[in-house]
Amino acid sequence: MTHLCGIFVPNIVPYDAQGRIHEEELRRIIRWLAGKGVTGFYPNGSMGEFIRLSYEERKRVLKIVVEESAGKPVLAGAAEPNVDLVLEMCRYCADLGCRAVSITGPYYYKLTQESIEAYFRELAAKSPIDIVIYNIPAFANEISVPVLKRLALDCPRVIGTKDTSRDMPRFQQVLHEIKPQRPEFSVLIGWEELLCASLFMGGDGGTLSSAGVVPEVIMKIHQDARAGDWVQAKRAQFKLLDLFSLMVNAPNFPEGFRAGYEVRGFAPGRARFPLSQGELAIMEEVRSRIACVLAECGFPEAAGSCRAASGVVPLSAAPSPADVESMVRSVMQRLSA
Amino acid sequence: MTHLCGIFVPNIVPYDAQGRIHEEELRRIIRWLAGKGVTGFYPNGSMGEFIRLSYEERKRVLKIVVEESAGKPVLAGAAEPNVDLVLEMCRYCADLGCRAVSITGPYYYKLTQESIEAYFRELAAKSPIDIVIYNIPAFANEISVPVLKRLALDCPRVIGTKDTSRDMPRFQQVLHEIKPQRPEFSVLIGWEELLCASLFMGGDGGTLSSAGVVPEVIMKIHQDARAGDWVQAKRAQFKLLDLFSLMVNAPNFPEGFRAGYEVRGFAPGRARFPLSQGELAIMEEVRSRIACVLAECGFPEAAGSCRAASGVVPLSAAPSPADVESMVRSVMQRLSA
Amino acid sequence: MTHLCGIFVPNIVPYDAQGRIHEEELRRIIRWLAGKGVTGFYPNGSMGEFIRLSYEERKRVLKIVVEESAGKPVLAGAAEPNVDLVLEMCRYCADLGCRAVSITGPYYYKLTQESIEAYFRELAAKSPIDIVIYNIPAFANEISVPVLKRLALDCPRVIGTKDTSRDMPRFQQVLHEIKPQRPEFSVLIGWEELLCASLFMGGDGGTLSSAGVVPEVIMKIHQDARAGDWVQAKRAQFKLLDLFSLMVNAPNFPEGFRAGYEVRGFAPGRARFPLSQGELAIMEEVRSRIACVLAECGFPEAAGSCRAASGVVPLSAAPSPADVESMVRSVMQRLSA
Amino acid sequence: MTHLCGIFVPNIVPYDAQGRIHEEELRRIIRWLAGKGVTGFYPNGSMGEFIRLSYEERKRVLKIVVEESAGKPVLAGAAEPNVDLVLEMCRYCADLGCRAVSITGPYYYKLTQESIEAYFRELAAKSPIDIVIYNIPAFANEISVPVLKRLALDCPRVIGTKDTSRDMPRFQQVLHEIKPQRPEFSVLIGWEELLCASLFMGGDGGTLSSAGVVPEVIMKIHQDARAGDWVQAKRAQFKLLDLFSLMVNAPNFPEGFRAGYEVRGFAPGRARFPLSQGELAIMEEVRSRIACVLAECGFPEAAGSCRAASGVVPLSAAPSPADVESMVRSVMQRLSA
Repeated sequence: MTHLCGIFVPNIVPYDAQGRIHEEELRRIIRWLAGKGVTGFYPNGSMGEFIRLSYEERKRVLKIVVEESAGKPVLAGAAEPNVDLVLEMCRYCADLGCRAVSITGPYYYKLTQESIEAYFRELAAKSPIDIVIYNIPAFANEISVPVLKRLALDCPRVIGTKDTSRDMPRFQQVLHEIKPQRPEFSVLIGWEELLCASLFMGGDGGTLSSAGVVPEVIMKIHQDARAGDWVQAKRAQFKLLDLFSLMVNAPNFPEGFRAGYEVRGFAPGRARFPLSQGELAIMEEVRSRIACVLAECGFPEAAGSCRAASGVVPLSAAPSPADVESMVRSVMQRLSA
Repeated sequence: MTHLCGIFVPNIVPYDAQGRIHEEELRRIIRWLAGKGVTGFYPNGSMGEFIRLSYEERKRVLKIVVEESAGKPVLAGAAEPNVDLVLEMCRYCADLGCRAVSITGPYYYKLTQESIEAYFRELAAKSPIDIVIYNIPAFANEISVPVLKRLALDCPRVIGTKDTSRDMPRFQQVLHEIKPQRPEFSVLIGWEELLCASLFMGGDGGTLSSAGVVPEVIMKIHQDARAGDWVQAKRAQFKLLDLFSLMVNAPNFPEGFRAGYEVRGFAPGRARFPLSQGELAIMEEVRSRIACVLAECGFPEAAGSCRAASGVVPLSAAPSPADVESMVRSVMQRLSA
Repeated sequence: MTHLCGIFVPNIVPYDAQGRIHEEELRRIIRWLAGKGVTGFYPNGSMGEFIRLSYEERKRVLKIVVEESAGKPVLAGAAEPNVDLVLEMCRYCADLGCRAVSITGPYYYKLTQESIEAYFRELAAKSPIDIVIYNIPAFANEISVPVLKRLALDCPRVIGTKDTSRDMPRFQQVLHEIKPQRPEFSVLIGWEELLCASLFMGGDGGTLSSAGVVPEVIMKIHQDARAGDWVQAKRAQFKLLDLFSLMVNAPNFPEGFRAGYEVRGFAPGRARFPLSQGELAIMEEVRSRIACVLAECGFPEAAGSCRAASGVVPLSAAPSPADVESMVRSVMQRLSA
Repeated sequence: MTHLCGIFVPNIVPYDAQGRIHEEELRRIIRWLAGKGVTGFYPNGSMGEFIRLSYEERKRVLKIVVEESAGKPVLAGAAEPNVDLVLEMCRYCADLGCRAVSITGPYYYKLTQESIEAYFRELAAKSPIDIVIYNIPAFANEISVPVLKRLALDCPRVIGTKDTSRDMPRFQQVLHEIKPQRPEFSVLIGWEELLCASLFMGGDGGTLSSAGVVPEVIMKIHQDARAGDWVQAKRAQFKLLDLFSLMVNAPNFPEGFRAGYEVRGFAPGRARFPLSQGELAIMEEVRSRIACVLAECGFPEAAGSCRAASGVVPLSAAPSPADVESMVRSVMQRLSA
């Protein structure tokens, strides 16, 4: 098997007006991305709302993505509720011809690193398909670097990791602890802001949600980096920060990224979780600002959706202290006007 | 409908050697608890590993619990992956004759309070059965007090809350904000250590995992409190602290509580998540210490399982800083000996 | 020495227009509180901005409080920058005739429980005056219960603890671990919302900032509780929640409490940290709302400062998610109006 | 004034056996570092235990460092307890000829971003010397990027920032938000692990505690990076990870770094906070391991202090979950042996 590297796109799932999977639109998205030259696909991750689909729906999504993947490798999310179901999904993925599965740390309960290691060891011993360990501590139990290192060195089935911790020191530590002893172990970044820095320090690529919205930009950064043209790569990286910040800070993740697909001409429908009326208004604003950034980044077709920002609707409904501050300022100014 | 109050037992799910639901043992547990006089049952909560069961298994557990409940009210966990599936489970519970469903804040993704309110409003509008809002911020998104208050005052279907935040000021604030305007709104504590204090301040009862292990003790505290015999209630409350601490701090929640059932003579089997070899040894020790505490609390039949503690195996594999400290001490002493 | 119990008031420090300690106003406050029957005083705590005073100023504050204390016991904050300076302050307090000193966990650096225990052991061995261990994890390193227990059982100089963690299970655990072996060890609550529950469970009293603003209310709760009139005590406790919430959630702690003193007729001046223009406006609103609550609680003289609330200025500049939500709502409504 | 860039060394303070500042040793350290070619000095930061010195001691340390600085620029910590004292220290630093002062976010109290901005605006308006904003959220209130941006764009006195958040996305965001509008604004990294990546993305240098222990290594990374020899720079960066990890994770920060000075032949004495007996033993082990790493990195004189590791003393007394895990393993193995 070849070493896993390059850019994998964590796909969204489009829904129709009744909330069912909009299969045709999903196929259209995958075909479009394949045409843009992305390395591979990553269905049933956090971006793909795996946790809000039924087991059968997750299988259906996988099947569609594989069918439309044009032979590109598929890294399939397989974080099912218990060991038996994970292994059943692993077998399904193997049968479909996926390249590997990606498994998050367990979520909901807080577990010890001992138990988490035992969990992954059991999966690694029984899985018929290669495994990528997906670290996303904001949503699921963190997998510590010592545990990851032991898994990497002891388990041939564990071929890599995807790191969405946004923790650059950790990323470097993973490289430092594992690569010297197992150079083909794949260390992928899962946080757009760190794409350039992670490639520079020795990473193997990324699974980046923005690659579904602006595959052209992400693939260009990746290619420039591979070619050693760091000046270009860094310039694009800094431009990407504004777009990513809009999409990741929008209310009700992953709605912000879905708005990005909309600006690019797709019909993702609404994610599988309600928004308040206020947040629906905020999403309008987010969509417009994404369009403005895209227009500015060389996607002229987005200009039409870039309306003059009202300036009064706060962008984030999960605001940082800084956002709150800016909201308070704005209210105070309006009151004193 | 009557006001929800008293003690509801969050049931474990026993498994057989193959990891399948051990239905006969589950029936035996429910019958035993019914005989002990608990108020009602609470299947498919965190204690019941709802998240590690398949959808069909959750339905099966519910059916069994209802069948064995001897007419006592059942508060059924219904935190399914998306709105449609929650509502489907609500209909199933209504058809079974459950008293109400309990729904946690959404887990995995971090969501805004706006979205969470929209989510519960949609459920409250469409559910055919009463809803209890289950706040457990250690595992799922917190539901803020202002959101809970608006839901309580606007939605007749929302009849109460279960609070497992271990946050007494929050519990009091909920009482203070809601009870004056809706006195029959049920405010249940979900943390054993606060049973006595919460009843004293005006709470309506609790859903307490320890009630499955020592129903006699929990029901006695509840009855003494209701009778105004606070001296007795407080004495038992303080004794309960040691037992609860052993069960809640054992590795790999809810294994500690399952060990408690074992000491009481049941065969819960292993929870649906692996333990390391080290943790299996720790669980042996936990089981022994639970037995010692029970023997001391007036359950002489537990004395047989109370072996002399080895003193060398640390009790908690998710240790607090204090535990770590004590472990370091212990290691240092052994080395200098 | 007698057992430490009752209500100690954590004093503010009033400043004049030049930012110097306003000594006459401080004397007036202490005399007023002594006249209201509070048990004792607690200068140089968090409420007293000890960390923003110079060493000489802290000594001056202590001297004034002792002089005006009318013979009531003084529990003096002595959390100085290093062991030698703490001990120097301890000697100063002993010479002044203070009853005991209160020492927080160390702040700024994150330290191990091992080091924190070594620190308190050194102080306990050398201090000429009794020590109360002050646990305030929001601002300084937490002191774990096992460490506190060992200090309580090994060190005669350590006579009690003040707990401002707002963590009721911890408070009970402290009672449970220490009182049976050292009944005269003093366990004081440092969080107003838990006054009633802590007394009920066996606490010895409190050091409560609100006691400086409404000594009548706090002393009444304490006396009703001691007399076993829990109905009255709980009624007052719930009323206190609104006042405390206003004062503790106001921007720039301890400004909210200082506003309370202002409503009672004192001239505290501005705390020793700047406020933004927006926050100054918010403080106006806070002051008015405090006055309204006080007028309603039976302090008719406050009615004059209770202006009609504007309703547009958010009360908290360190808003909870719920506050943010309500601010967003308010902005959205204004926009759609 | 010239743009602030390069490597500034956050100095430790050596103490004699009585715990007083060991002035001669401090002079010897500064002279040694000046001889090693570091860019400048950074006294009275977290490494220098500013918070455990008296006001007069901080002034004394400054004076000594300036006297021995051999004309190199001094960036002086000036985080005093209140605005007046900060400004007094600023004047003192200006008179001594320091290049700039560094001021942390306020510590102990949790403050709003509004207040923090007001605080720095007041300092920037009145300070006679340039200011660097020091962000160290582990110990003091974070300064949000929007606040930092407004200060950078509005206040000429605010000439740069030192970022010790270990948050690479934040570091990049600061570059992205401020540099285009104020290119001479200095953005310094305060976390060794990110030195290489931060320089690569456009940072101006760093204030790095390791530069006091291995000035040769840090200056070489800096020079290689400036010369575009990234292969060399990255190789040294990865080697540095092991040394830094030992020093930063040792108990009772900054003892680990002080042990590093000891291995290099200095006599720092004990930091101004007690260690337990267990931690003293751990520090022995840490010192030995530092010596081993240094010997391996090309400092043969360290080899003498590199004793065979006992392997039984855990290295960290503030252990990560992974360390705990490894400790448990180790205990279990010993028990079963």
